[in-house]
Amino acid sequence: MSINRHEGLKKPDLRLINKALAMVSGKWRLYIILLLGEQTLRYTQLSELLPGISEKVLAGELKALVALGVMKRKAYAEMPPRVEYKLSKKGRLALPILSQIQDIGQLFN
Amino acid sequence: MSINRHEGLKKPDLRLINKALAMVSGKWRLYIILLLGEQTLRYTQLSELLPGISEKVLAGELKALVALGVMKRKAYAEMPPRVEYKLSKKGRLALPILSQIQDIGQLFN
Repeated sequence: MSINRHEGLKKPDLRLINKALAMVSGKWRLYIILLLGEQTLRYTQLSELLPGISEKVLAGELKALVALGVMKRKAYAEMPPRVEYKLSKKGRLALPILSQIQDIGQLFN
Repeated sequence: MSINRHEGLKKPDLRLINKALAMVSGKWRLYIILLLGEQTLRYTQLSELLPGISEKVLAGELKALVALGVMKRKAYAEMPPRVEYKLSKKGRLALPILSQIQDIGQLFN
């Protein structure tokens, strides 16, 4: 049985799928990525833009997104300390696809 | 602060994002959707194509995907009983975007 039934679709690869899903899983990750977009934002700015999320959850999600390679964190040795986040090069490459995921929610709305 | 920093991106909508993510969340949902693609498959065929998944989990995931409106189930009054699954119209519309999610996994591989 051939799986290549429509243009561009190869047999799905469970490992690659779950690697991608790790970046968007949970309630906040994709939202944080789309909110950041092409911007560089301080931790405090992100926190203000995400009023429904606890500091603990936000810090954990940012750490996970940095570990996954989607996002970069830069800390400046200033007083008061300044920490900035932006998408990594790969994160910016993935952004056009990631922003279309919301369109699927619209389609099923 | 303007959020519209790159082409086509509006301020993300958490509700739409999570509606879309419900369709792909978990280890198997997106894999099942991509495997089905434009095909109509019997339950037994799906089960054979997904060797790593228990019958209980597969039945639950199919039920959830039907409830979400991504997939359609058709049962034929035959002996032995025949049950077929295919993507709904909306599911087929979402397919090009959904199949690109795997490309993100490739990018971060």
